[in-house]
Order: sequence, then C-alpha cells, then structure tokens
Amino acid sequence: MSDLLQHLAQVLEQRKTASPNESYVASLYAKGLDTILKKVGEEATETVIAAKNGDSEQIIYEMADLWFHCLVLLVHQGLEPELVLNELERRFGLSGLEEKAQRHIQGE
Amino acid sequence: MSDLLQHLAQVLEQRKTASPNESYVASLYAKGLDTILKKVGEEATETVIAAKNGDSEQIIYEMADLWFHCLVLLVHQGLEPELVLNELERRFGLSGLEEKAQRHIQGE
Amino acid sequence: MSDLLQHLAQVLEQRKTASPNESYVASLYAKGLDTILKKVGEEATETVIAAKNGDSEQIIYEMADLWFHCLVLLVHQGLEPELVLNELERRFGLSGLEEKAQRHIQGE
Amino acid sequence: MSDLLQHLAQVLEQRKTASPNESYVASLYAKGLDTILKKVGEEATETVIAAKNGDSEQIIYEMADLWFHCLVLLVHQGLEPELVLNELERRFGLSGLEEKAQRHIQGE
Repeated sequence: MSDLLQHLAQVLEQRKTASPNESYVASLYAKGLDTILKKVGEEATETVIAAKNGDSEQIIYEMADLWFHCLVLLVHQGLEPELVLNELERRFGLSGLEEKAQRHIQGE
Repeated sequence: MSDLLQHLAQVLEQRKTASPNESYVASLYAKGLDTILKKVGEEATETVIAAKNGDSEQIIYEMADLWFHCLVLLVHQGLEPELVLNELERRFGLSGLEEKAQRHIQGE
Repeated sequence: MSDLLQHLAQVLEQRKTASPNESYVASLYAKGLDTILKKVGEEATETVIAAKNGDSEQIIYEMADLWFHCLVLLVHQGLEPELVLNELERRFGLSGLEEKAQRHIQGE
Repeated sequence: MSDLLQHLAQVLEQRKTASPNESYVASLYAKGLDTILKKVGEEATETVIAAKNGDSEQIIYEMADLWFHCLVLLVHQGLEPELVLNELERRFGLSGLEEKAQRHIQGE
C-alpha cells in the first residue's frame, strides 16, 4: 500500500501526454480545471449519499472516486499528493491535533 | 509517508474513547454521522474555491481538511482507509483504468 | 413573475405521469431520490465555479439549474415551493432576520 | 407570495450599508465572495442530508437556507433574482423543456 498515492500521481502525470480520446484522465485535462472541480464536488455529494445509505461498498467506491479526482486536481495544478499527506501528518502531531481541536471547538 | 493513512486511522479509532470536550474528532463522533458528512461537503466546496483562487497552499490545506474528514467518516463507519486505496489501485490496473476511461467517455 | 415557482411546481407534478423516455424530469423521478440529490449537489458546485469565474450569465444559468432541481426535489417529496418561500418570509420578518443574524454571528 | 424574492433582494440590497456587527448578511458581504460561496455549498449538502433523512421540515428549512444564500450571492454580484426566474421560465416553455430534456437524456 505504501507509496501508492505517489505512484498513482506518476501515472496521472504520464496521462498529460495521452490522447483525450483514449484516456479518461487526459479528457479531464483537456476540458480543464472547471470540469475537474465539478467532478470533485459531484463525488463528494455521492460520498455523502452513499454514507446516508449506510452502504459500505458504495462508500468505498464513491470515496475512491473522490480521492481519484482530488489526485487529478493535484497533478493538474502541478502539486504532489505528498504535500497533502505532510499537511495531514503535521496536524496529527500531538500539538497539531490539539491545536486543531481547540480551534474547531472554540471557533467556527 | 508509507502507511500514514493507516496510522492516522488508528489515531482516529482511539479518539472514539476520548472526551468530546478535549478532542475535535471525539466531538464529531458525538454529534454523529450528519455532522461528519456536512464537513465532507463543506471541505469539498472549500477545495473547489481554493483551486479557483489558484492558491497552492490553500489547495493543500483544504484538501487535507477534506481527506481528514473522509478518514473520520471511514473510521466512524468501521471502515479502513486501505479499502479505498485498494479500490484506487484496482482502477489503476491497466485494464481497470481503461475500463473506467471507456465508461466515462462513452457514458454518464 | 408572480406565482412562477408555484406554476412550475404544477408542471413538475404533471411530469410524474410522463414517460422517462420523453421527459427529463420524468427520467429523474424514475431514477429516484439519489439521482435528484446528486443533481442538487452538482449544480451547487457549478454555481460556485460560475461565481468564481465572475461570469454573470453563467451564474444565472447554473443557479437556474440549481433551483430547477430543488423544485424537482420538492415535488418528488410531495412538498410545495410555497413552504420554502414562507420559511424565507418568516426569517425576513424584522425579528426573524435579527434572530438569525444573532444566531450566526454568535454561534457556528 | 408574489414578488417575494424580489422584495427579499431589496432587503438584502439595503444590508450593504448595515454594520457587520449587527446584520448577518452584512457580515457575509464583509467577509466576501468566498464566504458566501462556502455557505451555498454547505447548505446544498445540508439539503441533501435532510432529504436522505426524509424529514420534510428539515428539507424546507435547509432549502430556505440554500435559497437565502443564493439570493445573497446574487445581490453581492449585482444581479436580480428575476434573472434566474426568467431563465427558469424560458426552460419551462414548451420547446425549452423538451430541448433540455433531450440534452440531458442523450448527453452528459
């Protein structure tokens, strides 16, 4: 499982030179940022619906769709998934998690 | 980086016994599924806005928020992040990716 | 313009007996609640994107799509748009608006 | 009920000169477009969750929240709700509705 996201990002990077007629990811790049973002929003809603259905298989499937299009977004913007994982790790550091907890509980 | 998501899921699992007053994650569990799902939808919208702003730092930050709440959702439902990664891996298998590509280009 | 939403709801009600092959709305009813909700989420995201593009025509178009699918949702659930308008009117009553304002500014 | 949305838009217009400390709407204007858009996305998700809960009162409440923030968005952008209603009316014209139906059934 390790380095899977990193590996997937490499595959997505290679798709930048593929034909939009042959690759779904290449067709997303060709349509541009707004199309990719619509997919992110769409898959988030589908994840919510799946969870309300209490259907584990559907949750996994839709969340994979959501993360997939998040990865496409990152690669499209020239960003690496490692940056998101680093940010997650930072928050889960002892002080980081508490800081976030405090911020959310007090604020917003 | 490897196994990070798995490790984070373990921390989130431990938060199930924490006090909602002391832990943000425990407060989410206490409020229940709908509150967690609202956060998933909210962070997806914030990721979209960050991307439209073209602000890399903001994209990373909001996507970390989105994945964070996805992980909370998984753990709340008794699911492991590895299941989502396995699904992603399955799709990126040679035939899998083509199958998905074909499905999206022709259909939906 | 008056009573437009009410009139549209009547048309949407009539579509319940139309063929899914001939009417888009009937095809939504046939696919069921989850499909209608996906459209609500999708059109909300597209409204956000349109607004970030600062494109007035696109905002109008996407918001019409959003309200359209909201109306479909209401009719599907046996609810009348007037109920939503009444709720809006209630909030805009002098005390109502202040109450909401206070709730949002202090809380959430 | 007639002209209600138009009237609400006038009230929202007046809030542009109110103090952010005293008016929720004025506080939204002061925070700017991104904050308004986050609310649109948030309320759309809450509408989806309410519908999955099958709770009519909650659906009405959350959809009123969604339309409310849509109106705030319109007024913030200098647009009138009548434009959205006109677009809806256009689509519901006989040919318009069929055209849309065909577009959705065949395409997307």
